[in-house]
Amino acid sequence: MNGERSLFIIPLGGLEEIGLNMTVFQYADDLIIVDAGLMFPEEDMLGVDFVIPDFSYILENKEKVKGIILTHGHEDHTGALPFLLKEINVPVYGTSLTLALVREKLKEHDIADINLISVRPRDIISLGVFDIEFMRVTHSIVDGVGLGIKTPIGNIVHTGDFKLDPTPVDGELMDFHKFSEYGEKGTLLMLSDSTNAEKGGFTFSEKEVRRAFEDIFSKARGRIIIATFASNIHRIQQVIDVALQYKRHIIMCGKSMVANSQIALDLGYLKMPEDTWVRLENLRDLPDDKVVIITTGSQGEPMSVLSRIAIDEHKHIKIKEGDTVILSAKMIPGNERSIGKIINHLMKRGADVIYEKVSEIHVSGHASKEELKLMINLVRPKYFMPVHGEYRHLKYHARLAEKSGIPSDNIFVMQDGEILEITETGALKNGKINSGRIFIDGKGMGGVEDIVLRDRKRLAHDGIVIVLVGIEKLTKRIVSGPEIISRGFIFEDASQDIINEVRDLMTNTLSDLEDDIISDISLIQAKLRSTLKKYLRNTMDRKPMIMPIIMEV
Amino acid sequence: MNGERSLFIIPLGGLEEIGLNMTVFQYADDLIIVDAGLMFPEEDMLGVDFVIPDFSYILENKEKVKGIILTHGHEDHTGALPFLLKEINVPVYGTSLTLALVREKLKEHDIADINLISVRPRDIISLGVFDIEFMRVTHSIVDGVGLGIKTPIGNIVHTGDFKLDPTPVDGELMDFHKFSEYGEKGTLLMLSDSTNAEKGGFTFSEKEVRRAFEDIFSKARGRIIIATFASNIHRIQQVIDVALQYKRHIIMCGKSMVANSQIALDLGYLKMPEDTWVRLENLRDLPDDKVVIITTGSQGEPMSVLSRIAIDEHKHIKIKEGDTVILSAKMIPGNERSIGKIINHLMKRGADVIYEKVSEIHVSGHASKEELKLMINLVRPKYFMPVHGEYRHLKYHARLAEKSGIPSDNIFVMQDGEILEITETGALKNGKINSGRIFIDGKGMGGVEDIVLRDRKRLAHDGIVIVLVGIEKLTKRIVSGPEIISRGFIFEDASQDIINEVRDLMTNTLSDLEDDIISDISLIQAKLRSTLKKYLRNTMDRKPMIMPIIMEV
Repeated sequence: MNGERSLFIIPLGGLEEIGLNMTVFQYADDLIIVDAGLMFPEEDMLGVDFVIPDFSYILENKEKVKGIILTHGHEDHTGALPFLLKEINVPVYGTSLTLALVREKLKEHDIADINLISVRPRDIISLGVFDIEFMRVTHSIVDGVGLGIKTPIGNIVHTGDFKLDPTPVDGELMDFHKFSEYGEKGTLLMLSDSTNAEKGGFTFSEKEVRRAFEDIFSKARGRIIIATFASNIHRIQQVIDVALQYKRHIIMCGKSMVANSQIALDLGYLKMPEDTWVRLENLRDLPDDKVVIITTGSQGEPMSVLSRIAIDEHKHIKIKEGDTVILSAKMIPGNERSIGKIINHLMKRGADVIYEKVSEIHVSGHASKEELKLMINLVRPKYFMPVHGEYRHLKYHARLAEKSGIPSDNIFVMQDGEILEITETGALKNGKINSGRIFIDGKGMGGVEDIVLRDRKRLAHDGIVIVLVGIEKLTKRIVSGPEIISRGFIFEDASQDIINEVRDLMTNTLSDLEDDIISDISLIQAKLRSTLKKYLRNTMDRKPMIMPIIMEV
Repeated sequence: MNGERSLFIIPLGGLEEIGLNMTVFQYADDLIIVDAGLMFPEEDMLGVDFVIPDFSYILENKEKVKGIILTHGHEDHTGALPFLLKEINVPVYGTSLTLALVREKLKEHDIADINLISVRPRDIISLGVFDIEFMRVTHSIVDGVGLGIKTPIGNIVHTGDFKLDPTPVDGELMDFHKFSEYGEKGTLLMLSDSTNAEKGGFTFSEKEVRRAFEDIFSKARGRIIIATFASNIHRIQQVIDVALQYKRHIIMCGKSMVANSQIALDLGYLKMPEDTWVRLENLRDLPDDKVVIITTGSQGEPMSVLSRIAIDEHKHIKIKEGDTVILSAKMIPGNERSIGKIINHLMKRGADVIYEKVSEIHVSGHASKEELKLMINLVRPKYFMPVHGEYRHLKYHARLAEKSGIPSDNIFVMQDGEILEITETGALKNGKINSGRIFIDGKGMGGVEDIVLRDRKRLAHDGIVIVLVGIEKLTKRIVSGPEIISRGFIFEDASQDIINEVRDLMTNTLSDLEDDIISDISLIQAKLRSTLKKYLRNTMDRKPMIMPIIMEV
């Protein structure tokens, strides 16, 4: 990375994964960061609360960082920000809703004194050699932008997350004209959202959901409960609009739903007459057919309002015959089983439940194949880099770009940490920086190491067996034990025979030990471990973690 | 359950769950069992290999059991059989492929001397007061049957798993005429498959898949690798047929794929010219465009052939540019992430991967709404009991039955263990027997208790912290420790500070103990546990399992 006249693009996250979106743009001594997202843990990341990108590269180049630019307020683009801002204090640029959501998060992390600078679509800011122009896009959160970045060697377009919604709820269209301008004046590189690159056709407009809502509202005789993402302000607006049409009051429920709605209302992104939103406490005073409850929990999150309602553990809301519950969100892969359980519980308690499979109550926020091709044709970049997706999404997107006329040599399917170097004469992948994922568990405690996760996996699978032995320091005589203690292995009360057998085996192993082993505690431990491991594998086909503890007294 | 002239229907599994299908039919001193299935564990059943129904009711009524009847060979209908047959030796009835698959399983469990009695569609057998007629159905495994059961108070129809495939691969149609005969002569009760009761329309014919295969085969220039379920003989037959059409040899790969194909070939359910099936070892001698590999692993199972191929760990098969991989199966909810990873790996290694989302390479084996209504109209039962599904599937199926003219009072949405009692004058839910799920872990070791699973969950989430203290028996003086050992909690090498803090805390707690606590080891343990628990929650927001071990010497 010595090229003085080179532009470097380094994705720190978001490639070969959904989440962790974060990209570095660097030229000489100027470095800007676009987005800083988190990822929710996969099922084998036991006990991990969430994942952030390893941004040590940024810390190593602290003095070069000119600012952080956010494309929109989703956590997969902003969630790592508090962790980054604990390490470096640089200005953060974003639209007003994006920054309002970020402000809440920073408060939770007790981070103050950050310069949050609000921008509007078509604003242009200068950060070192970079001029960054914000261009409105349509997405499943309001106030999203793509970026036009002017650099010393050419223009870059970063789409951010987008779809081409011809009829957005707020009437604010994608800024086709600006994107088209970049196509006309020449674009060196485009980075574009690959999430739906597998999906044929066009993504439906957010407005399509309204038709499904109207149909449901017109038939519902009792209460209506709608679960969706707290950040999906357009969806919430549509619920409000249909509720007004059918003369129902709105109750917001769930911490983030209330907070986000209040923010959006204050900023004017959400619109409703003043007396429409009533407090949860007033629920009992309203007739069932005069109320809509909007809440979180569409992914079956165990502590969410909807989960608690489903198992009768919510203080104010009990499901009864006649209730209609709408899950207005995509079932994210990995969550289907938990969501399925909630649907079963709700139906069992008498609710009519409407979900993705049985009605059109959700549309995606990401562009499908035809939209992606259109975007490529509009911007006509020289080089193309699919971002925001697993490998297969990036690959499908690369194929679309090739079909749309970009030479395959000019398409770069990258990995996190890989460096794309662009000069006036060409572009190439040129090396790799240190990158990766940091697992966050608990109060910002920092990372969870791989070895810890490996241990958790073993513990989760077959539990732990502890062999406890007391040995006299000088004589090496056994003075206590072997005592057998287990957790998550077998139910000791019911399997006393097994525990006894294990104890006998350990007693015999100890009494058979050669003198040269007895003198070395680690050798005793190794012998006990290997003997017990073999025994449990052969007799029970189980592999608990075995922990011999020898205490010298 | 004293009614002498009563018929009792008792589901032991399969209601409010997918899997575990098992139903008891009882009249006076005669009891028959239909199916005995297993279920694969859900993600919170840590370390559990699989789940079987609690069949203690059957063991308590051992002497009444006249036989077990199998509808088809899928494991969710036969997988609990080895465990049941270890406890009681009764004859098992099924069609020849079903029994051939069962025979393999019994061999694995070292169970011999079971009377397996082969039946053919339209055969009638007598078991006590029951006459059971077998009626061919179409499903995603060949040789499936539904049952017509003549009892002293009326006829029962049990559909088994079915779809109404108008063009089955083997030409063997659903036995409409027999089902219709039951409709004509009168049916007291029908139990019917609810799996797809949420899905509108008709399920596509298995033959539809052939078109997709032909399209893929006509374009593929290199090897073709197809993953599907080893029991889906029709699917395998279609691959063979298209392979012959495109002059490709077949290689079967994976233990169960080879075993099932051989069984199906021997019994005549699978048909191919003798030299078509070549050995895996011959792969390297064949041109890439002359071979199809059929294998298992369509669900992303970590040890399956496809998973090993995907990460370059298969001895004979390495993915290369030009390979086409087809996942010809449904992505079962809960498996999407593992399957997604495999797709990414395969594409990264150059394969073209075709899966559910991007092509029509799979159809379901279960009837959708229109077929279910047709079945109800055909059989015209007096009483109706939806089976084989989660609560929402049963409920949707019940609604379909009501729409089809069955009075809602005659529809019974049951739970496992609930008793449906039918007499000449009526039907009602009448009590409950003991039922539930048994978790199998390891070598048929018997159940895993709830408390063990709870421990595994805690261990999985935050690991374990052991506080080890040696105390002199008489004086209660501390002679060793406190020593802090952890697993799956934090990485001790990197977090020595935390370990030291915990040790200091425990030392202080011990030295502050009142005399009346010191005299009681369980009180010392409780004090150490509560102190440490509070400390870790407040400082780190973590909740590991805390295990104080006091050794008296």
